[in-house]
Amino acid sequence: MPSSYRTFRNSVPWLILSLEAVFIVLFYFLFSDDGVFIESYSAFRDVNHMLIFGFGFFLMFLKRYGFSSTGFNLLVIVLGVQCSVLIDTFVLLLQRQSKHQLERLLKAAMSMTAVVISTGAVLGKTNPVQLILMTVLELIVFRMSRWMNTTFLQITDNISMMHVHLFGAYFGLAVSSRFSEPSPRSDKNASTPKSDLLSMLGTLFLWVFWPSFNSVVSESKWRAIYNTYFGLAVSAVTAFALSVLTTKDGKFRMTHIHSAVLAGGVAVGYAAQSIKYPWIAMVLGLLASVIAILGSYCSQRCLNPPLKLHDTSGVHFTFGMPAVLGALAQVILLII
Amino acid sequence: MPSSYRTFRNSVPWLILSLEAVFIVLFYFLFSDDGVFIESYSAFRDVNHMLIFGFGFFLMFLKRYGFSSTGFNLLVIVLGVQCSVLIDTFVLLLQRQSKHQLERLLKAAMSMTAVVISTGAVLGKTNPVQLILMTVLELIVFRMSRWMNTTFLQITDNISMMHVHLFGAYFGLAVSSRFSEPSPRSDKNASTPKSDLLSMLGTLFLWVFWPSFNSVVSESKWRAIYNTYFGLAVSAVTAFALSVLTTKDGKFRMTHIHSAVLAGGVAVGYAAQSIKYPWIAMVLGLLASVIAILGSYCSQRCLNPPLKLHDTSGVHFTFGMPAVLGALAQVILLII
Amino acid sequence: MPSSYRTFRNSVPWLILSLEAVFIVLFYFLFSDDGVFIESYSAFRDVNHMLIFGFGFFLMFLKRYGFSSTGFNLLVIVLGVQCSVLIDTFVLLLQRQSKHQLERLLKAAMSMTAVVISTGAVLGKTNPVQLILMTVLELIVFRMSRWMNTTFLQITDNISMMHVHLFGAYFGLAVSSRFSEPSPRSDKNASTPKSDLLSMLGTLFLWVFWPSFNSVVSESKWRAIYNTYFGLAVSAVTAFALSVLTTKDGKFRMTHIHSAVLAGGVAVGYAAQSIKYPWIAMVLGLLASVIAILGSYCSQRCLNPPLKLHDTSGVHFTFGMPAVLGALAQVILLII
Repeated sequence: MPSSYRTFRNSVPWLILSLEAVFIVLFYFLFSDDGVFIESYSAFRDVNHMLIFGFGFFLMFLKRYGFSSTGFNLLVIVLGVQCSVLIDTFVLLLQRQSKHQLERLLKAAMSMTAVVISTGAVLGKTNPVQLILMTVLELIVFRMSRWMNTTFLQITDNISMMHVHLFGAYFGLAVSSRFSEPSPRSDKNASTPKSDLLSMLGTLFLWVFWPSFNSVVSESKWRAIYNTYFGLAVSAVTAFALSVLTTKDGKFRMTHIHSAVLAGGVAVGYAAQSIKYPWIAMVLGLLASVIAILGSYCSQRCLNPPLKLHDTSGVHFTFGMPAVLGALAQVILLII
Repeated sequence: MPSSYRTFRNSVPWLILSLEAVFIVLFYFLFSDDGVFIESYSAFRDVNHMLIFGFGFFLMFLKRYGFSSTGFNLLVIVLGVQCSVLIDTFVLLLQRQSKHQLERLLKAAMSMTAVVISTGAVLGKTNPVQLILMTVLELIVFRMSRWMNTTFLQITDNISMMHVHLFGAYFGLAVSSRFSEPSPRSDKNASTPKSDLLSMLGTLFLWVFWPSFNSVVSESKWRAIYNTYFGLAVSAVTAFALSVLTTKDGKFRMTHIHSAVLAGGVAVGYAAQSIKYPWIAMVLGLLASVIAILGSYCSQRCLNPPLKLHDTSGVHFTFGMPAVLGALAQVILLII
Repeated sequence: MPSSYRTFRNSVPWLILSLEAVFIVLFYFLFSDDGVFIESYSAFRDVNHMLIFGFGFFLMFLKRYGFSSTGFNLLVIVLGVQCSVLIDTFVLLLQRQSKHQLERLLKAAMSMTAVVISTGAVLGKTNPVQLILMTVLELIVFRMSRWMNTTFLQITDNISMMHVHLFGAYFGLAVSSRFSEPSPRSDKNASTPKSDLLSMLGTLFLWVFWPSFNSVVSESKWRAIYNTYFGLAVSAVTAFALSVLTTKDGKFRMTHIHSAVLAGGVAVGYAAQSIKYPWIAMVLGLLASVIAILGSYCSQRCLNPPLKLHDTSGVHFTFGMPAVLGALAQVILLII
């Protein structure tokens, strides 16, 4: 029905504009100018680069979604950051605390990572309206989960922020299970060498900025940087080796490398600041990479069909499983 | 006349080389090693990235000018920065003041933004010699305008620097009106999906670095960053919404987004450090984006044909009009 | 013999994995947590960006090696950085000194520049196993040459690090002479406009980050930045001018610009912190660019055929000769 489609398309800009109007009004009432400035600008800049470039290109591997991925990614991020700043301000008002504006902006940008990862799971199945509603809903639920973590589990605010990958991946999978799988005949899931190359560019971007991300909120910055770098390095090495071993013609598969090189960074995320010796981070990186590549086999063949999951960009094994591994490692390290 | 063309082509390198020889000689006589170091390197690096990558790719949307845009952009920037440092040194000598070398380099790089914006207006109509002459002339006129601003209008040196967008856009339009429009039949104005994508990449680059640019010379850095980010965010949201509303098929037009997402950053530029509440920056961003998209309609249909303007990359509505809005807002805020 | 080829392909991942296992074991035994933190994270981040993006794309100009260049580049870098950190730790153990972990990581990343430059010389002629062996060997020899420089020639550790370009270029040429030239009929050396454009992107990345690289280990950072910027600027201008002069149709050749714009940064490298007046850096940049373009003619016609060299990406004139010029200039400046 093209007429109803046109009506729907026409509703998108009004939704966006009215959301934006609500944001401006709330900013007018809520925002005072207080708190002390702690975080540096370069931390925020790095997280911002990761979001806009890294994830923007990371999701460009479907040839039909080249423009949309970059464009929608920008739209979702700018709406989501404003929404997240407002939610954070509400919570701080209730708790009668205050934080510096730039720190709230930084936390908002970090929270958006969860949304962008979830977007990867539903890519090519949602329309813009669903995507925007998912963004607002996910940010509220994520803020609630962070609040529960800090209140009931006595986790520090900074550590609770490192749950973004875990939360984003499984929230995305849950949303994804509500949508029907696109028919395999359509070219919606096809990728071209050019789109693969751009996606590889996005992966490299994320890879390079990951130590910044893990060290932003940690107390001993250089240790977080150091451990994350080695975790990432080992998971990249393992990704190349396993990619050759698991393919029949003995060539590298870009999709394997695409998902497994980042697994180390995700796994090291929780414990980055508390790991004392780099070899622990290296072993974590190795395990995360193995899980990501084996998981990509299992989940596509055994796990997804019965659960009727359709995980477009494989966030389950790229972000979900390595984050579970990282959480387990953190618990084990705390016990020891 | 291919022979005269060949003679002309042969004159380009000699012009460039003799200009460079003059620069080296002037540097030999003029440069002493004095002043105190204030600005940080990361400020200069960000501005440099914006110039080389951001504008380099922003101007790549014409398919026939892929290589030339990036290449000429680099040539014009490196010549212009040296020229601008020399002009600044002359002025400082006359005023018997001194500045640190790295600060002069930073100011020179920022001044080059005006030239690069002007280049956007004359893209595809000038030859290299005209482009280089325009660069030298524009930098001299811009330095004179900054000197007049600080001397007669009592504007601080830093605020006068924020006129780059306004100056660049209207200087470019003035130069553009001296050239005849290329025939619409030729494919000189054609763009391909690939060149559009690269241009979008440049736009994202500029978008991400704009808070750095606006905060470089401001006194309260974090407020400039904060306001610029929200101005940019709202103008990006508005650009997407208006793009759908103004097209018949209800799809996003990359050209709209291309020009309107940056409008908020340009408009907030002047007042970035003095706006106290983010909602003011957000309203400015909204207005700037509306002006940019409506302006793109009006100027292409009503304004340009009678004035015989041909504005290749639409600098009038991307940089010119939002900068006028920003200047008005700054005046209104000062009065209040 | 496809069967032996398959056997060989199957040995690659085991080589990589066993190398990685050795690294993890060595890290387990060798790494203690000591030293004082001096260098900033932003220095390391910039060098890391240069390696991953700059050199990754710089080497993408062969159309058959698009994916491989970026992919192998990442693999070689992550293996090499771990290897280099281990070698450095061995040497520090023998000398009974200690250094902060992040500083060792920074030095390791800088050392990798030598390997990446050497890779450029043998691109398209080596298989992954040869590449990895070359990496390990080159890092050991480079650390030995640095040790000899600091012990016998009384060069400071930081200046000895600036030999990377010189060492990388000539080591690469030496390795390259052991391989036979690919037949000119094959399309292994062909490049496409798209691969050229990506390679230009890599060159711009290197260009923009070069001042960071030269200033990382220098004592007066801003002087190193300043001199490097002007050296690079003049060499870019000269590259454009000479490219037009040396081609028959009077057009820019991307390959010329590709190699000559960086020559100034390489030449200024040694003396960046000790040059007092920018005109000296500018003259050095001019000479380096002339040497790079004239050298590209001579070496391809007179020098390479008798010596049976085949220098795929022209590292001899891009990095080798300008580095020799820089070393000579440093000696002359020290005498004066």
